[in-house]
Order: sequence, then C-alpha cells, then structure tokens
Amino acid sequence: MAIAAKQGKVSKKSAKKVAGGTAKGRDSKAAAGKKWIYFFGMGKADGQGGMKDLLGGKGAGLAEMSRLGLPVPAGFSITTEACNAYFDHGKRYPSGMWDQVLGNLKKVEKAMGMKFGDSSNPLLVSVRSGAKFSMPGMMDTVLNLGLNKDTLQGIIKKTGNERFAYDAYRRFIGMFGSIVMGINKKKFECALDAMKHDRGVSEDTGLNAEDLKKLVGTFKAIYRKETGSDFPEDPFKQLEMAINAVFGSWFGDRAIKYRSLNDIPHNLGTACNVQTMVFGNMGDDSGTGVGFTRDPSTGQKRFFAECLINAQGEDVVAGIRTPMHIDELKKRLPKAYKTLDTIYKKLEKHYKDMLDLEFTVQEGQLYMLQTRVGKRTARAALKIAIDLVKEKQIDRKTALLRLDPQQLDQLLHPMVDPNIDPRTIMKLEKKGLPASPGAAVGKVVFNAEDAENWAKQDEKVILVRPETSPEDIGGMHAAQGILTARGGMTSHAAVVARGMGKCCVAGAGSVYIDEEKKIFTTKVKVYDKEKEEFMVKEMTVKEGDFITLNGSTGEVMLGEAPLVQPEITKDFTTIMKWADETRKIGVWANADTPKDARTAMGFGAEGIGLCRTEHMFFEPERIKAVREMILADNKEGREKALAKLLPFQKSDFIGIFKEMKGLPVTVRLLDPPLHEFLPHTDEELQELSSDMGVKFDKLKTRNNALHEFNPMLGHRGCRLGITYPEIYEMQVRAIMEAACELKKQKVKVSPEIMIPLVGHVNELKSMREMALRVADEVQKSCKIKVDYSIGTMIEVARAAITADEIATQADFFSFGTNDLTQTTFGLSRDDAGRFLPVYVEQGILEDDPFITLDQDGVGQLMKLAVEKGRKTKKGLKMGICGEHGGEPKSVEFCHRIGLNYVSCSPFRVPIAKLAAAQAAVKGKTGTDLSKSTV
Amino acid sequence: MAIAAKQGKVSKKSAKKVAGGTAKGRDSKAAAGKKWIYFFGMGKADGQGGMKDLLGGKGAGLAEMSRLGLPVPAGFSITTEACNAYFDHGKRYPSGMWDQVLGNLKKVEKAMGMKFGDSSNPLLVSVRSGAKFSMPGMMDTVLNLGLNKDTLQGIIKKTGNERFAYDAYRRFIGMFGSIVMGINKKKFECALDAMKHDRGVSEDTGLNAEDLKKLVGTFKAIYRKETGSDFPEDPFKQLEMAINAVFGSWFGDRAIKYRSLNDIPHNLGTACNVQTMVFGNMGDDSGTGVGFTRDPSTGQKRFFAECLINAQGEDVVAGIRTPMHIDELKKRLPKAYKTLDTIYKKLEKHYKDMLDLEFTVQEGQLYMLQTRVGKRTARAALKIAIDLVKEKQIDRKTALLRLDPQQLDQLLHPMVDPNIDPRTIMKLEKKGLPASPGAAVGKVVFNAEDAENWAKQDEKVILVRPETSPEDIGGMHAAQGILTARGGMTSHAAVVARGMGKCCVAGAGSVYIDEEKKIFTTKVKVYDKEKEEFMVKEMTVKEGDFITLNGSTGEVMLGEAPLVQPEITKDFTTIMKWADETRKIGVWANADTPKDARTAMGFGAEGIGLCRTEHMFFEPERIKAVREMILADNKEGREKALAKLLPFQKSDFIGIFKEMKGLPVTVRLLDPPLHEFLPHTDEELQELSSDMGVKFDKLKTRNNALHEFNPMLGHRGCRLGITYPEIYEMQVRAIMEAACELKKQKVKVSPEIMIPLVGHVNELKSMREMALRVADEVQKSCKIKVDYSIGTMIEVARAAITADEIATQADFFSFGTNDLTQTTFGLSRDDAGRFLPVYVEQGILEDDPFITLDQDGVGQLMKLAVEKGRKTKKGLKMGICGEHGGEPKSVEFCHRIGLNYVSCSPFRVPIAKLAAAQAAVKGKTGTDLSKSTV
Repeated sequence: MAIAAKQGKVSKKSAKKVAGGTAKGRDSKAAAGKKWIYFFGMGKADGQGGMKDLLGGKGAGLAEMSRLGLPVPAGFSITTEACNAYFDHGKRYPSGMWDQVLGNLKKVEKAMGMKFGDSSNPLLVSVRSGAKFSMPGMMDTVLNLGLNKDTLQGIIKKTGNERFAYDAYRRFIGMFGSIVMGINKKKFECALDAMKHDRGVSEDTGLNAEDLKKLVGTFKAIYRKETGSDFPEDPFKQLEMAINAVFGSWFGDRAIKYRSLNDIPHNLGTACNVQTMVFGNMGDDSGTGVGFTRDPSTGQKRFFAECLINAQGEDVVAGIRTPMHIDELKKRLPKAYKTLDTIYKKLEKHYKDMLDLEFTVQEGQLYMLQTRVGKRTARAALKIAIDLVKEKQIDRKTALLRLDPQQLDQLLHPMVDPNIDPRTIMKLEKKGLPASPGAAVGKVVFNAEDAENWAKQDEKVILVRPETSPEDIGGMHAAQGILTARGGMTSHAAVVARGMGKCCVAGAGSVYIDEEKKIFTTKVKVYDKEKEEFMVKEMTVKEGDFITLNGSTGEVMLGEAPLVQPEITKDFTTIMKWADETRKIGVWANADTPKDARTAMGFGAEGIGLCRTEHMFFEPERIKAVREMILADNKEGREKALAKLLPFQKSDFIGIFKEMKGLPVTVRLLDPPLHEFLPHTDEELQELSSDMGVKFDKLKTRNNALHEFNPMLGHRGCRLGITYPEIYEMQVRAIMEAACELKKQKVKVSPEIMIPLVGHVNELKSMREMALRVADEVQKSCKIKVDYSIGTMIEVARAAITADEIATQADFFSFGTNDLTQTTFGLSRDDAGRFLPVYVEQGILEDDPFITLDQDGVGQLMKLAVEKGRKTKKGLKMGICGEHGGEPKSVEFCHRIGLNYVSCSPFRVPIAKLAAAQAAVKGKTGTDLSKSTV
Repeated sequence: MAIAAKQGKVSKKSAKKVAGGTAKGRDSKAAAGKKWIYFFGMGKADGQGGMKDLLGGKGAGLAEMSRLGLPVPAGFSITTEACNAYFDHGKRYPSGMWDQVLGNLKKVEKAMGMKFGDSSNPLLVSVRSGAKFSMPGMMDTVLNLGLNKDTLQGIIKKTGNERFAYDAYRRFIGMFGSIVMGINKKKFECALDAMKHDRGVSEDTGLNAEDLKKLVGTFKAIYRKETGSDFPEDPFKQLEMAINAVFGSWFGDRAIKYRSLNDIPHNLGTACNVQTMVFGNMGDDSGTGVGFTRDPSTGQKRFFAECLINAQGEDVVAGIRTPMHIDELKKRLPKAYKTLDTIYKKLEKHYKDMLDLEFTVQEGQLYMLQTRVGKRTARAALKIAIDLVKEKQIDRKTALLRLDPQQLDQLLHPMVDPNIDPRTIMKLEKKGLPASPGAAVGKVVFNAEDAENWAKQDEKVILVRPETSPEDIGGMHAAQGILTARGGMTSHAAVVARGMGKCCVAGAGSVYIDEEKKIFTTKVKVYDKEKEEFMVKEMTVKEGDFITLNGSTGEVMLGEAPLVQPEITKDFTTIMKWADETRKIGVWANADTPKDARTAMGFGAEGIGLCRTEHMFFEPERIKAVREMILADNKEGREKALAKLLPFQKSDFIGIFKEMKGLPVTVRLLDPPLHEFLPHTDEELQELSSDMGVKFDKLKTRNNALHEFNPMLGHRGCRLGITYPEIYEMQVRAIMEAACELKKQKVKVSPEIMIPLVGHVNELKSMREMALRVADEVQKSCKIKVDYSIGTMIEVARAAITADEIATQADFFSFGTNDLTQTTFGLSRDDAGRFLPVYVEQGILEDDPFITLDQDGVGQLMKLAVEKGRKTKKGLKMGICGEHGGEPKSVEFCHRIGLNYVSCSPFRVPIAKLAAAQAAVKGKTGTDLSKSTV
C-alpha cells in the first residue's frame, strides 16, 4: 500500500485544465518527420484560415490572406504542436523543428530577396506568439530581430538612413531585453528620457542618429547589467531565444490565470510567428494603420480605420502620436489606400464577417500584417448579423451563431462606460460576484429602511448589506443597485435582484461592513501617478459616499463612474424573432408577482416555470399571519392563521394568471424553512404575543426551538407540507379557487402545482393525493373544471437517482439546479464566497457551478433523471427553473438532454432564447461555438 | 395535461410500503381455481412449516405440527393471498374462497366428529389472524365461534355443564362484540362487574349458570345498542364477519404504524386461522399452558413452562390467575405431561431451535395450539446457538445466522430492566432518537461545567443540553448519559457518545429546555390508577431531579428505573471467534484518541477507519492556538499558530499508532467548518485580542465574517486544505513525523491520510500533491521511509458520480455515509428531528436513513462509485466509515457491493463482526434473515 513515485493517470477531461498536463506518449521518432513549420507570404501558404488549432489565430489569418494573394510579408508559423512537444521534451525542441526553421527561413529569404544575418542585404523579422484564442499575458511582439553590428550596417547602406537604422536597433534591444529577457521596461525608458533631457528635446523624434547610437550603447549596458551577459550578436541565437520566450510565455503566470478565468484549456499551446519586417517609418511614403471593415460600435457599413504616416504600429500602441482618420491615407498615399480598399472588401466577403485588420505601408507598398474577426458591441453585433443576412452573405442560422447571448445584456441594462480610463477610477482590489447584470451609481446606505427613506428624498442609493433577507425587499426596490458582502450567485440578493432586473454585486468578501457605524472598509486599487502604477490601499466608505456597481463583472468602484444607457432596437426584435423560429425548446420565466409576469411576457416568455409563493408572504399585513401560523403549537392555531392568508394568496394568483393569458404557470408550494419568517427581535415577539394571546416566554421558547443548524437542508419544501399539511392545502386551495374564478370569467388558466424538495416517491405521492383531494373539493364547490397538473422539482440527488419511481406520481419534472448543485457538491451557495473564487482561480473548478451548470456532475444526474423519468412515462414534460436556465452553455446542455423548456429570470429570457436557438442550429453535432474562433 | 382519474403506476419497490398499494392485475378468472385454504390437523396438513409467506407464522406452525403427527385440533388457514385479493376486489372474497371455506369446514367436522352450527354436537372454532411476522395491532383471537341459542344447548347436553356453556357463550359475545365489531371492551367488563357486585362475589368463578345466562342477555343488549343490530345467530354469518375483521385488521391504524416502524412491507397480507376449539376449563382434568423448550433468559437446557389447571389461555393473559410451574402439570396430569415432554423434545429436534409452545389439555387429552421460534435474551441466544452446535443439531454458520447482531448491545451496555411494570414509571410521551445504546440513571444537570463539578462530588448526572458542541466533551465524560433536544443520529452528541460507549438519547424534540432557569418541560405519560389508563401530562423537571435514559430505544423516564448490568461471557468470545472465521470483510473502528483505539483493539478491530483530527483541537491548551490560527488574517499568522499545534497533533498520533500496533490508521485531515472553533463570547475574544496583539474590533469583525448559513455545506473539509494549505501541511507533517519517529523505535505503523469532502478530482489531486511533498520532506529529514497511503472520503454525490476520475488520485475510498446521506437527501442530520420521525411514522420513509443505509438512493450512489472506482483502479481498497458501518443491514449491503471493510464506533465492532459473518454466510443469495421468520 506504499506510494511509489508513480502518478495516477488523470482522465482526459480533467487533464485539459491542469497546468503542465499534456498528452503523454507521443512517438518521438515520428517527430523527426513531422511538419512543425508552416510557411506563408506573397501569395502562397502551407496553411489556411481554418487551421487555428495548429497555427494560432494570427498564423491562420496570415496564411489565409497569403492564399487570397494579398500582400503579406513572407514568414512562417511554428505550430502549437511544436510548442507542446517542446514542453513534453523538457523544454527542448522536438526533433527536426530547428532544421525546419532554418529551411523556412531560406524560403522567406528567397521570397523577400533578403538574407537573415547578412551584412549587406539583411532580412529582419518580427517574432510573435499566436494562440488559438487571443490572450493577454502572452508574449508581445519583438520587432527588428536579426539586427547586430553587421546587419545594422547593411540597413544603413540599404536605406541610406542612419537615424532610422539606429532607432530600429535601440528599439530591438529594448524590446528583446524587456520582452524576451524580462528586464524592467522602465530601465530602457529612463535611459531614453535621460538622453532626451540631455539633448533638450521632448520627443523621440528630436534625437538624431548620433544620440540613438549612444543610446544603443546604453541599452546594451543595461542588458549586460541585468542579465549578466552580452546582448546576443548572432541573429540565429536571437531567433532561438525569442522562440523559447514565446513558448515559455504559454505557461507564464498571467497566461495561466487568464486561461483559468476564461475557460481555455491549458494544453492548446501557442504558435510562434516569424515574419519579415516591413517598416511604416521609412518616410512620408510609409505608414501604418488598423481598422475594422464595419463600425464596431454601431455596426454601420463603413470602413472604420485609423492610420499614422511615417510611423510603426508600436507608436500607436505607445500613445506617442494620435492616429488620424483613414482619409488621411487616402489623401497622402492614394495608391496604397486603393489597394487597402480593395483588400478589406475582398477579405470581408471571404470571411463573411466584420474583420479587424492591421497593415503597414513601406515606401508606398501596402502590406497586410493581421486579420481576424473584429470585436464589436452588442448593438453592432446585431446590426452586422442582420445586414450580412440582407446582403445574402450568410443565412439566418449562421447569423444567430455569430452572436454572443451574454452580450445581449448590454442592450437590456445600463452599463459602465467601457471607455473610461482605468487610472481615473478606484476599483475594489477583489471583485464580487456578477450577480445581476447592469450598472448602478448611488450613495451608500446600510439598511433597507434608510434606502427607502433616502429614495423618497430623490436620492439614488446603493444598498450595502452583509446579506439580504426577504425583509429587505422594500429597500432593494428603492435602491439603484445592491452590494452584499456574503452570498453567492443564487443567494437571496442575487435571485431577487435578477428578478427585478436590478444591478447586484454579491459576495464581495473583501468588504467589511460595520452596520452600527454605517461604514465599510475594503482594499482598493489606486493609480499612483508618480510611480505610474496601481497601489492597493485600505479605504473606508461612509454612508452617503458614492459608489458604482458593475453587476455584469462584479466590479465595485468608488465614486460615480459614467454609465451608458440601454436601448432595445428593431434589430433586437428581429433577432428574437429569428431565434423563436429556430429554437426547439421553450423559454419560460421565473416570476413571483404580476409585475414580474408582465415583464416576462414583454420579453416573450412562454410560461412561468417557477412562481415562488414565499415571496408573497412578506408584505407587512401578511407577515403577521405567517408568524402566527408558524408559532401556533397546534393545527387549529395554524388553520386560523392560514385562513387569513388564503385571500392574499388567491389574489396573487389571480393577478399572475391574468397576466399570463392561459400560458402555464408553475406554482411552487412553500419551500424555505419556516424560521426565515420568524420575528427577529423581542419587540416583534412581544407584539405577536399579545396578538395571539400566547405568553411571551412560551413564544420565545418555540421561536428558539425553530432555529436550524443548516436551514438549507432542514425543515423546508415538502417536509413542511407533510408535517403541516394544512399549509399546502391552503395554497392548493388558493391556486384552484383563483383558477376557477377566472375560468368562470372566461379567462384561460393553466396552473401547474409544483411540490418542492422531493427526495422519495412517497413524499410526492402523499402531497399529490392531498392536492388532488383539495383540487376536487374546490372544483366541486365552484362547479367548474380546470385543467391543471401536479409535478415536482428535481433538486436533490436522491430524486434524480430514483426518478423512475418519482415519475409515477408526477405530471412534470422541473430541475431546480440551484439546490441540485448545492447538494450534489455539498456546497452552500450562500457560503461558497470564501472558497469558490479560489477554486476557479486555481483551476480546481473550471467555472462557478452556480453560474454554469456542472455538466460532468450535476448534469450527469439530470441526464439520469431524464432517462429514468421518461422510461416510466414516455414524453414526461421536463424543464429547468434554476438560475442556469438563463446561462447559454447550460441552455445548450438542457437542449441536448432533451428538456422541454428552460425557465429563467425575466431579463434573461432574450439570452435564453438566443442560446436555445444556437443549440438548435448546432443540433446533435454539439460544435462548441461559444467562443469566437474565426 | 389535465389529470384524469387514473393513478400513476407505482414501481414494485415503493408499492411495498404504501398503505393500500397492492399488486394489481391479478387474473380473476384464475382466482376461481386457486387454492385459498390450507387444511391442517390430526396428523395431516395441506401446508407445511416453510410456508409462512402464505399461511402466516401461526398457520405454518400448525401445519408443520400436524405433519409431524402431533395432536393439533383440526382447522384451516385462509391464505395471505386471499387477504390481498380481498382488498384488490374492494373488500370482496376472491372467487371460490368461500366455497373452499365451506369445504374445509366439512373436513374439520369430519376430522373432529362434530358439526358446525349443529344443535346436538356442535363444532366451535377459534378465529385468529396470523401474519408472516408477529404483529401487535392485528386482530386478537375470537374464541367459541359457532355458539348461538341452538348450539349452546348442544354444548350443555354434550358437557352436562350449563355453567361452562353459558360462560363460553358470554365470553364469545364479549369477544366478538369488542374484537370484531369494535365495541369498547369496558362496556362488557362493567356489566360483568355489576353482576358480580349484585351477587356479592369478587371472582368470575363465583357466578353461577343462572348469573351467566343473565349476563348473556345483558351482553346481547349491549351489542344491539352499540351496533344497531342483533347479535348474529347464524354461525356462518359469525364466521364471515370474523374473517372480514381479521382481514380488515391488516390495515388497522396500529398495524400500519407497527409495520412502518418495524420495516415490514404493507403488501404481505395476513392469513386467517380457523381452528376447532379445545377447552382447558372443562374441569380438573383440563388445563392450559405456555412454555419454552429452553430457558429464554439464560439459554439453559431445561423445559421452561407454566400451566393453569381448569383454565383457558385467556385467563393467563388477563392476569386473573397466576400460572403455576409446569411441575404442577406433571403432578396432576402426568399422562398429558408425558406427552408434552415427548412433543417438545421432538419439536425442538425438528426445528433445531428453541421454541415457544402453547398447549391445552381437555379432559386429559393434550392438544398443541401453537409453536414458533422463541424470543430470548442476548445471553440466552448465544448459549442456545453454541449448545445447538455442541449438540450437533446445527453447524456454526447456522448458529451465526440465528443471532440478532443488534441484540449484542445487551451484553455490552447496562440496560433498563425489561421486567419493570410500565405503569410504575413515567415515560416521556415522545421518544428521542436511540443515539447511543445502553441505559443511564442520574440527576439532571444543564451544562458541562455543572456535570463535571457534580461528578467530582460523586453525583451521578445526566447532561441535558439543547445540543452538544465539542466544548461539552468534559461534561459528557463526567455524565452517566446525555440527553439532547436537537440533533440526529449523527449529531455531535450521538457520535461522541457512541465513541465513548456512553448512553445517549438525542433529538428529543418534545423537551423544551430553559438553560437559565435550569429546568426542562415536556409531556409525560402517567398511569392513572383510577381510570386504569395512561394520561399525558405536562411536567417540569428541575436540576437535580433523577431521570433514566434508554439509549437503545430513545426512551426517557422520570425517576430512577432499575438497570441490568452487562456481562461479557465466554459464549460471547466464542461467537466472535466464529464470526471472525466466517466473515469476508474487515471490521475496523472509528477512534479519535489512544483510549478509543485501545477499546477498539479490545473488541478486535482490525484498523482505524476514521480518526477525526478535529476532536484533538479542543483541549484547553490547544483551543487558543486553533483560534489564533483561524483569526489570523494572513499566512504567517496561521503558520505561527500552527507551529504551536504541531507537537500536540504529533503526540496524539504517536499514541494512536502505538495502540494499533501496525494496523492501518486512517487519519482524516481537518473537516469541520472553522467557526466551530471560534470564541463564543466577547470575553474570550478579548483575551485572544490581547494574546494576538490584534485589535478587539478587528477580531470581532473577522469572527462575525466567519459565520456561515449552512456550515455543513460550507468552508470545511478539503476546502480548508485548498484555501489554507498550511493547515493540512501541518497535519500531514505531524502524521509523518509521528510515523517516522515510531518506525525508528521499531514500532510498526501504517498511516493512511484521508482527504475529506472531495467533490472534484482536482481537489484531491491538489491535496495529494501537497501531502506527497510534505511526506517526502519529512521522510528525507528523518532519513527513514514509511509505508503510507493517501485516499479520500466519498461523501458527496458528485464524488460518487465522478468516482472514475477521483480514483486516479486515490489509494483508497472511504464512504462517509453520514454526509453522503445528508447531501443525497438534502437533509441535515442535525435538523431532521422535527420531521424525520413523522416520515417514518407515516411510512414515507421505511427507516431513518441516518440509522439504516438508504440502499435505493444513497446505496445506488455507493454502488456506482464502487464500479466506477474499480474500473479505473482494479482492486481499489474501499471501506465505509459512516455510522452505518455498525448497522447490520447496512453491513450486509457493504458486503454485497464489495467493500473491503466497515468501520464503526468501538462498541459496535462486535455487532458489525456478527453482521459481516451473516452476510458472508448468506453469500450471494442475499436471503433476508434479518427478521426471525421460522
């Protein structure tokens, strides 16, 4: 039983995400003959646009442009496989790779008519990383590689421009030193600044060749001091080091973290692109630019580009010069512009999508350096997709696949202006959970009462609470947004806020609230202008201070950030129509009030999948009756209190049924533990004591006895219905009386009665019998028949495992994936805030399972339940009403396992519809199109 | 989706336990030709002893005795199938049954030479229910059926004894009226008493024929008044009504409840036995008696019987006369005695077991009325099983199957004297949970401190708490027993008490404790001597009052009940030896301290399956360091505090390893949520604040922030290890340092490091890497190699579902079925007290799933995990360490699904061993021998 050194084998699925985990056992003999390098350029390419897995996004784009005959400076891509093999072999190149590098370099030399390392006609190259997905944290570009004392002379001779040559050389040393060798960039920048100071100039352009020559010396000295060795003179050595740096950056800390956060597997590897340098800074007949084939902000069909004359791309990035409108290029280099105009149109037509381009003009000659599908706002995304259909470039299905469902949120909620300079705003060091999308600005208040009072004075407020409880609802309504220190994506605050369509950041664990003093303390990132970097500072925020919440990202900012307001456009309506025509599963909404129901209907919900009755119990005139019911110590006392509640419940249901116009309304009978409704203070108890005519002491003892250690696993759901049947009887009576009354008025109704927290068939059987009996009684006494059904939530593992038995007693199943996730993981959604972020960060879990359905665990239970349930009752109706019902990847999963509908909060209905349509288009192939990979 | 009247079909498994649920679809045509009745008596029988399913226990016994040629008055059994068919057909007899009744009645008449309903030579019969299992709440016997005005005359003529005849008649009317028609028995008793009063006599025997004749009239009048109709004169009508009453009693409230409580399926049905009456009260040559073939108390081989001369069996039951030693029969009716002597020996030899017998002597002639396997004490059970082996009647395997593992508790703990008169003692109206077996008497104290102080004064105390927490351990040690108002079978109190082998009743929800006033109030059953019935009264129990706990049943009594002390006999040792030779799976123990380990070794445990490290953290000198660790807000602070804990943990492990002499010791790393260790009062915080040099306010804020809504699903288990790796590192270091140190001293050690609450393979992978690294470091620095292994608990559904992945990182699995049950059901063991008893009572759950493993739900997950785990690693070692590891049915399940061992609290080791041996004997056939069914 001793442990040997051997590691257990990790299944494929999990290895994907583990740092360093790569597919073992490659045949290294096969490696020698393998193609590691793909040539591209000047009309030819080994690869093509579809080979992003192997060549990375950049390499594939360069190959495709070459194939289209566009002017791409020649170069080659070293494949992602080579990168993986490099790590497999203990950071040694796979057999044959270096030879292929040399061979391809020869091809490049031939294509470009230059020679690498040659002192008379030297070829300079750029070296860049290029993974399948664009990734911050990966290696930046190294330009001008190949320069040394000898080749420098070749450049001077060739260009006749000594200043240009030395400028290129000092840039190369600086980039190589900082990017490849990891020397702090500042050291080079300081040397440059010192030189400018010496020369009394303010711009780089003020330095002459001699200055730059000196600077080369200084840079080399810095390099030597920092690395302990001389700057490499051998261009091949330079190339090798740069390639190693590109490969190495794949497992850099930032890259690993980014992949973990963005759900990108760690075993993809990066490609490395080596490409002939072209120079936009060779004079006034040269230039550089970037652009989009359409307006990325509005989607308008117009070339949206900027350029700089006599400049390199890095100058744009560095913010040294402000780029000009592309018309400047048209005016100053009309021939190059004309070529560009032809090229961008050709490219867009070829890719059938809006593209992002990079180009350089060297001495009048245009070169294409990059193309990829362009990022865009939600508004633009809709317009472009619809326009491309109108232009008959793509069909509607493709158009639907082009959209990111999550992005629709931008159109439904206010958003923090994406263009604000991060240096001007103080963000909390640690994000909270993006609990309910949108953004909100307001003054901090620390309790619901204050929120309501301040709002009455026309103050915009943000309600900041350790956690919210149903009694905070008034304050939540009054507030612009809600910030909680505890609780997860499905905590009370999150669920209620989403229902209201109100911005919420939940579980911000680094916010320490002192309710009495009405302050919170937290750590904030502040930009230090002197040091030009962000510092972390502890800050105290007082009542009345402004803060800004970004509920779409979980960010919290101090002060007032500018917001962008939402707008629902005609394009939005068009896309929803297409989605409705395409999707195969229904999209319902979770709604607890007539108002919620109206919102849901406005977004085209096809039913209510979850109407929580407990939220109806909190209005002031009701809560007292609820408390009387709970604290009564016999059935009679409970029935007396319930009789007071019946008319309220009935009128609630009448309101909701009316809004839904005959669409199904799934009413979940009382679910949460009773003590959620209990009085919290002795005063409240005292009042109740005199109301009920029960001694205070006795009431207090009962109140204390109702305390639970783990209320989530306690006396709730159908356990209440079984121990206190009169509660559920009242609710069924209210539902059926409401339904009968409306049907008499010729209003269509379809109530579905849902029993929560069933784990054993006998629970459901008992509750079903009760409901049938009460429904019969009501229908008889009203002398009217109503179509209704009785089903259950599947929200504990035992229900899923025994779904065949449970199906005997159910007309429908509804997967309560919030609770199912909690119990399958053994993870309280309200308490996970302290460790779940760490899990996601460390890559232990790919996603927060309360946001994205855990398909391998929870999903397997759902699949089992679908199979077992339908084995007992073919065609048994099944839906999902957990928060996952509005999350695109989870919606696709629900489509795949054959659910009939998803139900989500009203504001997520459009997202669910689009996701459902995408799932239908993907069909059984299950292509993962959730990431833009063109 | 409207609901039609049709019922969903219930799967076989669940229908079993549902009231009214019976197998549908029997072919009623087939019914007509079916054999519904089995004749027996006077040397012949249609049935035999093995047919208990069909004939019930009583019917099968009568058939078997008839086959053996013993003198059994002729009669017949109506089958359980007939009973089920009766309910299937809306309470009508199945086709052909009544004809068969009449046919068999003819056979009986022939065999006995008498005629049913005949006025000259009438046959009288008894009618009795008889299910497979003996069941209180089923119908009692109706004697003398067939009597009416006419047949009465026949009896008078035949016996020449008018008094006897009228006595029989009034008894029949009274029994029929009360038992068949449900008239309150008291009405008849009052009439009898009035008559005795009139006649001035105190005994029934003082009444003469005329008195009894009058009484018959009065009884008939009562019957008329209560039922609204005349007493049935037609003997066939009498018979039909009695049969219906027998059938009907199967679904009587008490019977349903009893079955639910005792895990007996509801679809078995009852048989109905109709048998010729014989009379023990026909004079001094008649008599009646009951007996055991061996002493049921000690197991001694001697006929253990009692008799009454000139009496019916009911006189014994009614307590009217005190039975005499069987020697009286020998003296007074030597011939009958001799026959009985031959018969009991023959029967015992035939059944190869100790039997319980009923017989009647009528005018010198002995008749056998019943035989079945006799109930016995644990001590007797062991002796009888061993003696039968010595006598070569049975083999060892059969002997093992004869024992009830649960009964062994009697031999290990003090028990409440089973012979106390329930009327002399006040029991709580509602039982608590039988959390830790045995019994205890002591004075009530309400906190741990008082318990310790009083115990120091040599007071025996019972610690009464709402619930216990680790800080109560001192008081629990000091107390005789523990009573808690909240918490389930696996609550802290229950688990710790079992570990200590100390009596505990947990979750007594009807006990309302006022800690300040040091009282508790509760409802108690008190026997009202005047009314001769139990009344429920509210009582208050004060500090210092005596109470008695029965931890084996959950009963709580006020006052001091007499106890019987345990004794471990040579027989016990013998049986354990046989069990060890027979069982296939290992039996380990859960032990947290060297003392526990010693107890476990004493009972022959083969390893420690669960050593909980958290209990080690509560000693006064340690808890402060623990709190420092928790409240530190950085790694350094935690490491400083952990360094203080390391030596303690190490010495704990050294102690346990030494006790276990090289047997495996499975150490579970820290599992419970940290806040369990937090200071509870401001004073404690203040002290800590000055110790740590951290501001009180800051400490308090941190303390509050650690509060969790659902700690069971919170920041615990490996989640602690992942977020604060230094904690687990310290623990692994302590384990490995202890192991290395002992190995240097040539002490054998086998540590197994167990990671709790794993739900995802990556959690285990991360913790495994940590443990391997630390273990390597320790071994290197100690310059010694120790064999150890690293495994995981399977205690959330997700771990079971993904066991194939998890197995890649595990050397062993240990099923933590307490938590697995909690999460699979979504049921907190600490909060279930308020509804789980209702569930079991209503038959919604067959058993408390925290006591008996839920094989259909939780068990299916275990089975899945075993299969998936071994698919990845053939032969992966697996055990169970939840409380189910000591529950016989669950042990059998563990054997069946292929676990390698079960681990349970030390005092349950013998029970687990016996259960494991039984499972091995049953082998794959899986015969359910857990109920005595002979």
